[in-house]
Amino acid sequence: MSRGFKSLTPVDKAVAEFLSKVSHRPPVVDVPLGEALGRYLARDVVAEVDVPPFDRAAFDGYAVRSVDTLGAARTNPVVLKVVGRAGPGRPYQGVVGAGEAVEVATGAPLPEGADAVVPYEEAAERGGSVEIYRPVPQYYYVSRRGEDLSRGELVLRAGTRLRPWDLGVLASLGMSRVPIYSVRAAVISTGDELVEVDDVRGGPPPPGKVVNSTRFALIGLFREAGADAHYLGLVPDDEEAIRRALERALADFDVVATTGGASVGGPDATHRAVSSMADFYVRGVAARPGRPNGAAVVGGKPVVVLSGFPVAAIVGFEIFARPAVLKMVGGRPEPAPTARGVLTRRITTPINVRTYARARAYVRDGRIYVEPLAVTGSGVLSTLTRGNAILVVPENREGYDEGDEVEVQLIRGLEEA
Amino acid sequence: MSRGFKSLTPVDKAVAEFLSKVSHRPPVVDVPLGEALGRYLARDVVAEVDVPPFDRAAFDGYAVRSVDTLGAARTNPVVLKVVGRAGPGRPYQGVVGAGEAVEVATGAPLPEGADAVVPYEEAAERGGSVEIYRPVPQYYYVSRRGEDLSRGELVLRAGTRLRPWDLGVLASLGMSRVPIYSVRAAVISTGDELVEVDDVRGGPPPPGKVVNSTRFALIGLFREAGADAHYLGLVPDDEEAIRRALERALADFDVVATTGGASVGGPDATHRAVSSMADFYVRGVAARPGRPNGAAVVGGKPVVVLSGFPVAAIVGFEIFARPAVLKMVGGRPEPAPTARGVLTRRITTPINVRTYARARAYVRDGRIYVEPLAVTGSGVLSTLTRGNAILVVPENREGYDEGDEVEVQLIRGLEEA
Repeated sequence: MSRGFKSLTPVDKAVAEFLSKVSHRPPVVDVPLGEALGRYLARDVVAEVDVPPFDRAAFDGYAVRSVDTLGAARTNPVVLKVVGRAGPGRPYQGVVGAGEAVEVATGAPLPEGADAVVPYEEAAERGGSVEIYRPVPQYYYVSRRGEDLSRGELVLRAGTRLRPWDLGVLASLGMSRVPIYSVRAAVISTGDELVEVDDVRGGPPPPGKVVNSTRFALIGLFREAGADAHYLGLVPDDEEAIRRALERALADFDVVATTGGASVGGPDATHRAVSSMADFYVRGVAARPGRPNGAAVVGGKPVVVLSGFPVAAIVGFEIFARPAVLKMVGGRPEPAPTARGVLTRRITTPINVRTYARARAYVRDGRIYVEPLAVTGSGVLSTLTRGNAILVVPENREGYDEGDEVEVQLIRGLEEA
Repeated sequence: MSRGFKSLTPVDKAVAEFLSKVSHRPPVVDVPLGEALGRYLARDVVAEVDVPPFDRAAFDGYAVRSVDTLGAARTNPVVLKVVGRAGPGRPYQGVVGAGEAVEVATGAPLPEGADAVVPYEEAAERGGSVEIYRPVPQYYYVSRRGEDLSRGELVLRAGTRLRPWDLGVLASLGMSRVPIYSVRAAVISTGDELVEVDDVRGGPPPPGKVVNSTRFALIGLFREAGADAHYLGLVPDDEEAIRRALERALADFDVVATTGGASVGGPDATHRAVSSMADFYVRGVAARPGRPNGAAVVGGKPVVVLSGFPVAAIVGFEIFARPAVLKMVGGRPEPAPTARGVLTRRITTPINVRTYARARAYVRDGRIYVEPLAVTGSGVLSTLTRGNAILVVPENREGYDEGDEVEVQLIRGLEEA
């Protein structure tokens, strides 16, 4: 008898159907601004104040009434009386009258009466007066109230992944707490061959056993994707045990990933457990590595059913889990670093399958080259540490020829060699 | 009198001199593998075991003695007796003899006696026998012991920033704890105009005051760069107070960033405090925004002296602080996402100054366009949230023309419009 997946679902079709069934929204929690880095904003943020909250000097120089500078020239300076000084947080308390100026440092509140700043470069102070060498228009070198953010303006959209400057913007709006989605992810491993790294401690695993490495990769990927990820442990290759573990996980978490037990012709207890629970389940995708990966939806929540082999599981994470997180929070994909280079060796891939080939991209004599490392080998994780790039070969190609220019995704910087 | 920096140091020169003086190495700590994500590995890692630890099936099918398959063909199959089954963690306990086969699932230990796997697609089981349709060479579809990582091999270098797959590799080597650099970063804010967001709580700041937003951006940048970052609070614009704060910070932290008090013609207490302590100090860089930024070294540790204005401070972080972190841990820069697009509007920049222009990159009709948002405006943080790209204009250019193709760094994904 011949076994294997009867038919494989194209990646894009599998993902589109899966995401269309994911309807869960993670809970919204208010966190202190300093803890919101990398999380997804849960509400649109509209400015309730103007930023900056007042007109201020945008350059070091002299705050003046712009009309006073009409006709000023280096050969025919306008002379103003310096009536005070102001700095950031140290406003000038009086009013600048006709023929008067106040020395200001960048960031100082613009004194009342003044409407422009003459930079030092266009002025010279002597005694109690300053010579102005050029006329300045109204608001010259003035940072206007609300110039950065104006009251009522939509500042950040829900679903935005918060980066450092976003936190700065939220602070300047006076927001000391921020509503974010609390995305909790669970990873469940299955596989009777697995032992945990804590039970091995530097030595080789017992005969026939391998260390569960995939869980660390998945937890790391979920965290990098902005989720709070928890490993729930190793579950025996038993349908009922896996179903109970999934039920518990789905009660507490927003997204669940399993590894192992999804093969055809091998252990398939995870597959059977998921089948018995799922409202939607796509299984067997036209991706290499990662053919056994699948994705299910239970009660609106995504359950990603991944291979036990680390490279295949990582590919499955990128295909199903990352988009599922983004779908739940209304987020958008982040840009990926890429490089274009010349392929050093032909690679052959199957038609109608999307292939994720590991590669090493390097610079030599100012040109970028891409050396393929592995097209297959779903267990050979070292291809990701030896290499620094992924070459995705689309379904409609049977590979690339040596010398072809290809675009790769960089998972580390380009190497020199 | 005309004020300002007498001369500005070119960015590359300032950075090279600064980094050459940074000699501090952060302490090395052993952390559980699950806490090492995003941290910098502190020692070279050499494999002490083979991974996988035994030969195993790399495909679902039948483990056989390859010599038995000689001459097999679809029209003339070789028939072998199926003597058992094996799966991952479920080895076949006997020895595969001449004329025998064991059904194996991917990941199963290769049974003793067998040296190749015939995939299901090339075989058909009937009763207790299997027909083999093609000859297979030795080790066909066998994942060899040590194929992923072989004992004695250098697996990851010190200075590597640990990504999810690196954690998987370390797990498969049996490492339950990892030596990482503990990089502790401190941020000190100065500026009499500043109030903390916790003191404002949604309303506008008191007259003449602005919320300290820069600290959130810097803490976030340090964290994204793999450091453990702490905000040490607001220090008055007073040289002695700032010196004491710096001394305390340098006793506890590996890198310190200050904001504010570094201007020429305005508050300069930070500048004076740093001047009095520094073994090396470069100040006034040919960058826009960010001219007042500087960098010092005290006892081998980097002290980054940044503008109080958020965009200028962020530029200063990228110029000085990120490279300083990498220097201390022996790390390499991470790849940045980029895009090439057509400039929608001319931008003019000063010669001999490196300009960091904020821009919006978007796709229309399949082409990428880059719309400049701001060339100046060191305080206008919203240019980073409205935009998604940074266009760095090098020192030898006075800008770009409308229609020029430019490369930008993406800080978010490309927009559609």
